[in-house]
Amino acid sequence: MNYSFIRYVLGWLLIIVGILMFLPIIVAFVYDENVILAFVISMILAVCIGFFMRMKQPENRNMKAKEGLIIVALGWIFISVFASFPFMLSGSIEKPIDALFETVSGLTTTGASILTDVEALPKSMLFWRSFTHWIGGMGILVFVLAIVPMTGGGNMSIMKAESPGPKVGKLVPKVQSTAKRLYAMYICMTLLEIVLLLIADMDVFSSICMSFGTAGTGGFGILRDSCNSYTVPQQMIIAVFMIAFGVNFNVYYLIWLRKVKPALLSEELRAYLIIIFSAVLVIFFNLWNAYNHAFTAFKDAFFTVASVITTTGFSTADFDKWPEFSKAVLVTIMFVGACAGSTGGGIKVSRCVIMLKTVAKEVHSYLYPNNIEKIRFEEKVIEHNVLRSINVFIMTYIVVFIFSFLIISIDGYSFTSNFTAVVAAINNIGPGLAEVGPSGNFAHYSILSKSVLILDMLAGRLELFPILMLFIPKVWKKF
Amino acid sequence: MNYSFIRYVLGWLLIIVGILMFLPIIVAFVYDENVILAFVISMILAVCIGFFMRMKQPENRNMKAKEGLIIVALGWIFISVFASFPFMLSGSIEKPIDALFETVSGLTTTGASILTDVEALPKSMLFWRSFTHWIGGMGILVFVLAIVPMTGGGNMSIMKAESPGPKVGKLVPKVQSTAKRLYAMYICMTLLEIVLLLIADMDVFSSICMSFGTAGTGGFGILRDSCNSYTVPQQMIIAVFMIAFGVNFNVYYLIWLRKVKPALLSEELRAYLIIIFSAVLVIFFNLWNAYNHAFTAFKDAFFTVASVITTTGFSTADFDKWPEFSKAVLVTIMFVGACAGSTGGGIKVSRCVIMLKTVAKEVHSYLYPNNIEKIRFEEKVIEHNVLRSINVFIMTYIVVFIFSFLIISIDGYSFTSNFTAVVAAINNIGPGLAEVGPSGNFAHYSILSKSVLILDMLAGRLELFPILMLFIPKVWKKF
Repeated sequence: MNYSFIRYVLGWLLIIVGILMFLPIIVAFVYDENVILAFVISMILAVCIGFFMRMKQPENRNMKAKEGLIIVALGWIFISVFASFPFMLSGSIEKPIDALFETVSGLTTTGASILTDVEALPKSMLFWRSFTHWIGGMGILVFVLAIVPMTGGGNMSIMKAESPGPKVGKLVPKVQSTAKRLYAMYICMTLLEIVLLLIADMDVFSSICMSFGTAGTGGFGILRDSCNSYTVPQQMIIAVFMIAFGVNFNVYYLIWLRKVKPALLSEELRAYLIIIFSAVLVIFFNLWNAYNHAFTAFKDAFFTVASVITTTGFSTADFDKWPEFSKAVLVTIMFVGACAGSTGGGIKVSRCVIMLKTVAKEVHSYLYPNNIEKIRFEEKVIEHNVLRSINVFIMTYIVVFIFSFLIISIDGYSFTSNFTAVVAAINNIGPGLAEVGPSGNFAHYSILSKSVLILDMLAGRLELFPILMLFIPKVWKKF
Repeated sequence: MNYSFIRYVLGWLLIIVGILMFLPIIVAFVYDENVILAFVISMILAVCIGFFMRMKQPENRNMKAKEGLIIVALGWIFISVFASFPFMLSGSIEKPIDALFETVSGLTTTGASILTDVEALPKSMLFWRSFTHWIGGMGILVFVLAIVPMTGGGNMSIMKAESPGPKVGKLVPKVQSTAKRLYAMYICMTLLEIVLLLIADMDVFSSICMSFGTAGTGGFGILRDSCNSYTVPQQMIIAVFMIAFGVNFNVYYLIWLRKVKPALLSEELRAYLIIIFSAVLVIFFNLWNAYNHAFTAFKDAFFTVASVITTTGFSTADFDKWPEFSKAVLVTIMFVGACAGSTGGGIKVSRCVIMLKTVAKEVHSYLYPNNIEKIRFEEKVIEHNVLRSINVFIMTYIVVFIFSFLIISIDGYSFTSNFTAVVAAINNIGPGLAEVGPSGNFAHYSILSKSVLILDMLAGRLELFPILMLFIPKVWKKF
C-alpha cells in the first residue's frame, strides 16, 4: 500500500474542504451571525492539517485500484469529520455522533436528519448543510481531479469508485477533462435551477439552498415542512430538476455535443421515465380516492415519486400517512433509485433493468435450452463479467442490508421503521416510514445504530466495496 | 409440447390423490363424523376423472425438461384443487378461494391458514389438513415415481423440479429407486416421531397429526394455540424433529449406508446448525430480559427458531409480541430456510452460504485482482453455471417478491403485515408478523391477494420456475 501517496491526496482534500468553508463564512457575514467563528476555526484546522499532510511529496506516485478505493473511502470519512466541525463548534448540533450523522447524510446526499427543528439553525449552518449535498453529489474527489493537477495516472480508479452507477462513462479520454466537463454541466444546471426558482418568486437564500439540495439529490430542506409551504410552481420546478439530476450525465454531455437523438434513445433514460410515469400514475389514482382532490393528488404524487426515485427526499406531503399501496410503491422505487452516472443513489435503473432481463432470459431458456442469445442493454451485448459484477453487487447489497437491519433492530423501534431506515440510508434517500418518516427523524436511534447508518450511507454512496474493504484486516497489514 | 403424455401423468396423479383420501375416511369412520360423505364424493370424483384422463395411453412417452416442469406445475395445481373439495363439500370452509388457499398452504407445507378457529373443524378434516403437509413435504410426484412404473426416461426432470433445493442428489442411479429410498426414510422418521410423542403421553390422533405437520415442515396444528398447550417434553420432541426434517436427506442416506463421518462433515449441515445455534442464543438473551425467566426464554427461543428456519410455522409463543430484535432475527432466518433436499422451504442454507462466499470472494478480489481461486462448497469447486443459476434464482426470487408485495399492498393492511405475509408464503413458513402473526390469520385478505399468495406458495415450493413458466404465452402456443 502506497501510504505516503494516500496521505498526500488526503491532504489536498482537506485543503479544499477548508477553502469551501469560505462560502458559509460569507453567508454568516452577510446575515451577521455569531457562528462565524466556528467556520473560521474549522477552516483553519482543515487547511493547516491538510497543508501539513501534503507537505512531504510522495516519492512514488503509482497507484493501484486498491489504493484508489482506499483513498475514496478514507477521503470521504476525513471530509465528513472535518465538515462536521462547524456544527459541533457552534453548538448547533450538540452530540458529536449527531453532527457526524448529519454531515455524512449531507455529503452522501442522503438527507436523513437528526434535527428536530431545522428552522432553529443559523442561516449559515443551513447553507453549509445544503452545500454538503452539492459537494457530495458530484463527488469531491472528482472535484479534486477537476482542479488539481495531481498525479500521473491511475486516478481513473478514484473516479470509478466515487461516481455512482455500474459504469463510468469517461466522456473524453483524459480523466481530468472528464471531471471538468462533469462539473461544468453540474454548475450550469444548478445555476439554471436557482434562476428559475428566483423567477418563481423564491428568495435568494432559499433558491440557492434548495438548488444545492436538488442538484445533489440530497434532500435537506431549510424549513420544518421541507417543501410543503412552497408555491406549486416552485414545487414543480424542484420536482422537474430532481428528475433531471437523476439522469445519467452522459445524456447531457451528448446533448452538449448536439447528439440529441442518441441521447434520447438511451435505454436507461427510457426505463427511468417509464418507471416514474407508472409510479406517478398508480399513486395518483390511489391518492385521488384518499384526497378527493385530483390536482393535489397529482401534484403530491409527482413530487414524491420524483423525490423518492432520485433518492432526494424532499417532501410536500407526509407520505407515511398515505395508503399502504402507495407506500409499497414508494419503498419499491426507493430500491430502484436513479440512473447510473447521476447524482442519485439506490441500486440504479440500469442494474434493475439488466436484472429483469436476466430473469426473463432464464425463464426463456427453460423453453429453449439451446438458445444462446445474450442479454443486450443500450444496444450492446452485456459481457459476462458485467453481469457477474451486477449479480455480486446485488448479493453484497442484500448482505449489508440484512446485517445493518439486524443491528439497528436492537434499539427496539418498529419493523417498518428499522427496515425503511436502512433502505433510506443505504440508498441515500433520507426519510423512510413510521418513526423515520417525513415528519420524523433519526435522532432517537442509539450511537451504535447511528454508526451503522453512517456506514450504510457511505457504503451506499460509494457503491459498497470501498467501505467494505476498510473492514478487511489484510488491507492494512500487507503492502 | 407432449400434451397427451401430460394428460396421462396428471390422470395418475388424481387417482393417487383419490386413493389417499381413504385415510381421512377411516378417521371420519372411527370418530363417526358426518363429513364422511364429503370425502367419499371427492374421492370418487378424483379417481373417476383421473381414470378417464389416463385411459388413452400416450403414443409418445418422450418428455423434455419443459414438459417435466409443466407436469409439476399443473400437477400441483390439479392436486390442490381436488384436495380442497372435502373442505368445500363438507362446508368446513365456506369460500372456494379459502378452501384452495388452505389446501395449497397444506400441500406446499406453508401452514398459513385462513381459519379463525381450527378446533371447530371435524377431526377427519384436521387429519386431512395435516396429511396434505405430509404428502406435499416429500413431493407427491416423487411419490408417483416411487410407486408407479410409469415412463421410460426423463422423470429426473420431474424430480429435479419438485425436490426443494438447488441440486437434487440422485441417491442411486435409478430415479425410481431414489424416490423409493427417500420415501422409506421419510416414513421411518415420521413413525419414529409418532412413537416418541406417544411415549411423551400425547394421544394417538394428535401424535399422528403433529408428526405429519413436522415431517412436511408444514405447520398446521390442531389446536387454537398451535403447540403452546403441549408439555415441554412434547414441544422439545417436535422442535428436534423439525430441525431433523430440515436436514438434507442425503445426510440420512449416508448414515443409512453407515457413512456417518462424511454425513456429519456436510458443510451445509454445519452451517445450518451454526445458524440455529446463533439465532437461539441471541433470541434467548433478548427474551431473557423480556421474560425474566431463563428456562421459558430458552424453550421458546429454541422451538421458535427451529420452527421458523425449517419454515414449519408451529408456535409455542406469539413471537409477534417479542422484542423487535428477536423479530428481526426471525424474519432473517425466514429467508434463509432449511437445507437443500429437505422438506423445508426458503432460499436454502446452501444457496445462502454460496452467496456469502461470492461476496467475500468479490471483496477479496479487489485486493488481489490476479487471484483466480474458485469458490468451494462441500469440498468441491462450484462450477460457473451453478453460481450463475443461484444468482439468477435469487434475482427471480426478489422480482417475484416485489411484485407480490405490491399487489397485496392494495388491500391496505400494514407494511409489516404485507411484507411478512409474502415472506411467509414464498418461503412456505406460515405465520408472519402483525395481522398475519402467530395469533392472526390470512382470512382478511382479498381474493386477489389470496390468489397471489397461493401462487407464491406454489412458486416457493417448486423453486419458482415451474410456476413462472405457466405465465408465458409461448409455452402454450408452441409445441
